[in-house]
Amino acid sequence: MIKIVIIGSGNVAHHLIVAFENAQKKGNSIELVQIFSRKREKLSRLVDLDRITDDYEKLVEADIYIIAVSDDAIAKVVDNLPFKNRLVVHTSGSFPLDALNDNNRRGVFYPLQTFSKNKAVDFTTIPICLESENPFDYQILNTVAKSISDSVFAINSEQRKALHVAAVFVNNFTNHLYQIGNEICEQHQVSFEILKPLIIETANKIMVLSPQEAQTGPAKRNDTETTLTHEAFLLDENHLMIYKLLTQAIHNNGKKL
Amino acid sequence: MIKIVIIGSGNVAHHLIVAFENAQKKGNSIELVQIFSRKREKLSRLVDLDRITDDYEKLVEADIYIIAVSDDAIAKVVDNLPFKNRLVVHTSGSFPLDALNDNNRRGVFYPLQTFSKNKAVDFTTIPICLESENPFDYQILNTVAKSISDSVFAINSEQRKALHVAAVFVNNFTNHLYQIGNEICEQHQVSFEILKPLIIETANKIMVLSPQEAQTGPAKRNDTETTLTHEAFLLDENHLMIYKLLTQAIHNNGKKL
Repeated sequence: MIKIVIIGSGNVAHHLIVAFENAQKKGNSIELVQIFSRKREKLSRLVDLDRITDDYEKLVEADIYIIAVSDDAIAKVVDNLPFKNRLVVHTSGSFPLDALNDNNRRGVFYPLQTFSKNKAVDFTTIPICLESENPFDYQILNTVAKSISDSVFAINSEQRKALHVAAVFVNNFTNHLYQIGNEICEQHQVSFEILKPLIIETANKIMVLSPQEAQTGPAKRNDTETTLTHEAFLLDENHLMIYKLLTQAIHNNGKKL
Repeated sequence: MIKIVIIGSGNVAHHLIVAFENAQKKGNSIELVQIFSRKREKLSRLVDLDRITDDYEKLVEADIYIIAVSDDAIAKVVDNLPFKNRLVVHTSGSFPLDALNDNNRRGVFYPLQTFSKNKAVDFTTIPICLESENPFDYQILNTVAKSISDSVFAINSEQRKALHVAAVFVNNFTNHLYQIGNEICEQHQVSFEILKPLIIETANKIMVLSPQEAQTGPAKRNDTETTLTHEAFLLDENHLMIYKLLTQAIHNNGKKL
């Protein structure tokens, strides 16, 4: 039985708690023994209060401590831990393993997904990127990760950084393009709902085609007449700048191939 | 029984033919009576050759002629039609209704989706945007559209243009962000597969949250340290320009709210 402590009460901590509780019920050999949170009542719907502490000195012994807090709080949490030589991992995409202090054995347990509190996720499909300092710790991480996900990867800090930057493009930036689509619809009294099947199909296509194969549209065809018409149509200076830069990028891409 | 002729043999024509054939089999009161194509053999797997013509003079009488060709070929096709006062519609997102010659009754039948020949689509979920010059023609368009889709909208030329521009943002530009994600992964020997669940969840989130509610990440949090680290990490000048512009746009957006 691998004993787990989670430190944090944000979106990632929330979804990890739910996933570990479910995994335990299904008979996986893991046990979520404690949660550390400054906001005990925030988590009281998920676990009994007697498993939640807000005092570092009361942290129980465990095989792995998973720190699920914002990047700028990780180092401070690690410095506050009152023990040594235990396995302590963070869940961040961008924080390097060696930026943690080395009082404890260091590792990374990075679930690559976008979490919102009000939207349930199926953790079994979420890729978990693992890193450790030695093979023994990797085995613990691997067992813990596989108890909640079918998609587990050994990823070093450099690769993880690449994934994190790439995730900003395919998630944050893509979401901003959705927002621009929404704004253009609002400006012209059309329902954004009409675009939703296209948004889903654009994502689904990438499951079976490469981005190059999936690309269509006026920029790809170098249809200058349509792109100029679109540019003249855009009312917002920011929309126009983004339209021009991405049209140019798709066009140049065609020249590269 | 509404008689339909399709003119064209590209992706849109291909998927419309399949959809109408299925709708007819299910007992809808429509009949795909003929297809006009310069490349008869291209369509022979979909319909019998005797229903395909490559001669304008042999076009049969029908209640609606659907022109599914590239934008720059629409006007030429319309000019070649050897009849008058029939209902002739195109399937383009950007071509205005009044840019067609008025020998015939004009209309638009615009299915808002991204079509690839090698990927089947469920037409019932595809929004079809309709426009006509009179209410009688609208009824024909509406019956034909509803025979293949559950999502039919009256959309004027100005609104359709807005939808088309918005579609470029949420489809073509989003797909280009997927491609950048893929390139960053390749540069650092990480599998793009790891990002696919995130891509799907990003699209799924927009079905239930507004783009503003769904946004997360360093730009939204105004986490300058992380964005500067990302900028230093990007190897490609074009990736860097897009990163900076979209980060700034998300950041400014926060200030607007």
